[in-house]
Amino acid sequence: MKAVVVNQPGGADQLHVQNVEKPSPEKGEVLINVKTAAINRTDIISREGKSGYMNNPILGVEVAGEVVEAGEEANIPVGTRVMGLVNGGGYAEYAVMPADRAMVVPDKLSFEEAAAIPEVFLTAYQTLFWLGNLTKNETVLIHAGGSGVGTAAIQLARQLTNAKIITTAGSLEKLDYCHSLGADVGINYKEQDFAEEVLKATDNAGADVILDFIGASYWEKNLKSIAVDGRWVLIGVLGGSKVNDIELMSLMAKRVHLKGTLLTPRSDDYKKELTKDFAKHALPLFEKGKLKAIVDRVFPMEETGDAHRHMEANKNIGKIIVEME
Amino acid sequence: MKAVVVNQPGGADQLHVQNVEKPSPEKGEVLINVKTAAINRTDIISREGKSGYMNNPILGVEVAGEVVEAGEEANIPVGTRVMGLVNGGGYAEYAVMPADRAMVVPDKLSFEEAAAIPEVFLTAYQTLFWLGNLTKNETVLIHAGGSGVGTAAIQLARQLTNAKIITTAGSLEKLDYCHSLGADVGINYKEQDFAEEVLKATDNAGADVILDFIGASYWEKNLKSIAVDGRWVLIGVLGGSKVNDIELMSLMAKRVHLKGTLLTPRSDDYKKELTKDFAKHALPLFEKGKLKAIVDRVFPMEETGDAHRHMEANKNIGKIIVEME
Repeated sequence: MKAVVVNQPGGADQLHVQNVEKPSPEKGEVLINVKTAAINRTDIISREGKSGYMNNPILGVEVAGEVVEAGEEANIPVGTRVMGLVNGGGYAEYAVMPADRAMVVPDKLSFEEAAAIPEVFLTAYQTLFWLGNLTKNETVLIHAGGSGVGTAAIQLARQLTNAKIITTAGSLEKLDYCHSLGADVGINYKEQDFAEEVLKATDNAGADVILDFIGASYWEKNLKSIAVDGRWVLIGVLGGSKVNDIELMSLMAKRVHLKGTLLTPRSDDYKKELTKDFAKHALPLFEKGKLKAIVDRVFPMEETGDAHRHMEANKNIGKIIVEME
Repeated sequence: MKAVVVNQPGGADQLHVQNVEKPSPEKGEVLINVKTAAINRTDIISREGKSGYMNNPILGVEVAGEVVEAGEEANIPVGTRVMGLVNGGGYAEYAVMPADRAMVVPDKLSFEEAAAIPEVFLTAYQTLFWLGNLTKNETVLIHAGGSGVGTAAIQLARQLTNAKIITTAGSLEKLDYCHSLGADVGINYKEQDFAEEVLKATDNAGADVILDFIGASYWEKNLKSIAVDGRWVLIGVLGGSKVNDIELMSLMAKRVHLKGTLLTPRSDDYKKELTKDFAKHALPLFEKGKLKAIVDRVFPMEETGDAHRHMEANKNIGKIIVEME
């Protein structure tokens, strides 16, 4: 089968299509004829050789496609349209997936849309509800509102809670889009001090939950923005990983809960439970048109390198998809 | 009545006994004839004028004594021996306490022992179970094992879980004492690298829960010591508050939950619920002799300044008590 592999750890030019052996499903797994895969930042980190948790030379942690074979104890009929997280190997014509992580694609969604769902919606769901414990009448601050996880988080917070949603983005276009998805307050971080705006929007109480993809460069302002007893979930370090001069006393005085997380390296069991919870509470809302898969652009398999470059330029609103056939 | 008040923000010499007006219980409160109060680090911070949450010129956040008057809706009979947290005003002959925070003193305990219980045992209970979510077969690392909260945490972890208990202290005497309370592994932080010892004692898995009173100076080693998905509860900054060069990526990769907390500034409702939970699960173990109130030394009211100095010298094992009559 054809697959996109990494020549040597490095830039996007290291990605190329190669013929490799087709995988076979083991016990509890299904083999999927992959129609679409989506690009994630974790793929870029893996491509650069900076993370140790993906041994698979084929990148890609989420796919949508059709089940073509089911291993022992994997009770999904051949022909079922599914989407979900894979343990690497997603940028390929065929990939194996633990059956308990496969979600049936809602009828009204295309494969391009389906591949845009698992990673960002599961991450946003985990961050808002499992880690952030967002409850009613609270306020959530979602950074990078135009990103894949950002657009998913805004929609989930809107549909599943009555929380006040504050989001940051770097352009009016992105902020308008965030409003259309349900954000109450949009802050242009290039022109406004987001900490001041968050305090204004919350009568100085601050945000109860922060989704932080940015890390170091936002540290001080996030600390100002967070409410007493706030949950600060760190899921990315786009603004750098190294913070100087952290005042622990401020973390204590505000009783901050800082929770670092990454979805990809989590256990199979965790992903199974998260998928199950999400499929129960959120998946039906796609069929009803209340949640939308947001596709920025679709690339053919041969142009996966360009798809990576597009993400690295931070120009996308929503997900970048690669078609595998 | 006589009370210990702070002249001006500053050192222990600012404490002196003065005649002040006796408080009266409001709705939901009881008036207590205070027999004993205990010294806490939060008192020292208040004495220095460094914290803004205590307006009461009389220090002291925990007392033991006898109920002498009950306000409206405070259903505790006059004469009952009680102990618990007060909102300041503890270093005095009389103090008011919300009735829903008063715990009946177990018969076999003296007032000296009773005053040694509320703050440290409630803090340790909150840290281990409400914030640390310590569960069976896990490992807990308790720093400052000889301190008030340390000795309480070791005992609670021993009596209420089967967790492996690792503790650090600065002398053989303190470590021996920690072992006698139930610690499995003792590390002399002056002679050993505690992170290495924790990894040795856990087959490199690390500690699932860390009780951190130290802050900045232990940051790097705590990060090395903590397990994946570990809960790191920050309840003090004896080793400094300012950390340089924090690597957020390590917090994410280990999926650390860092939780800052302080008990004193929490709401009345929080203290009520915590007291209730503790009284149900832990208090009966004092009557049975399975939990011990640990008293280091008892000072007369006039020597409260010396009691503060004794704490500031870090020489105590267990609590420092002041007799109010």
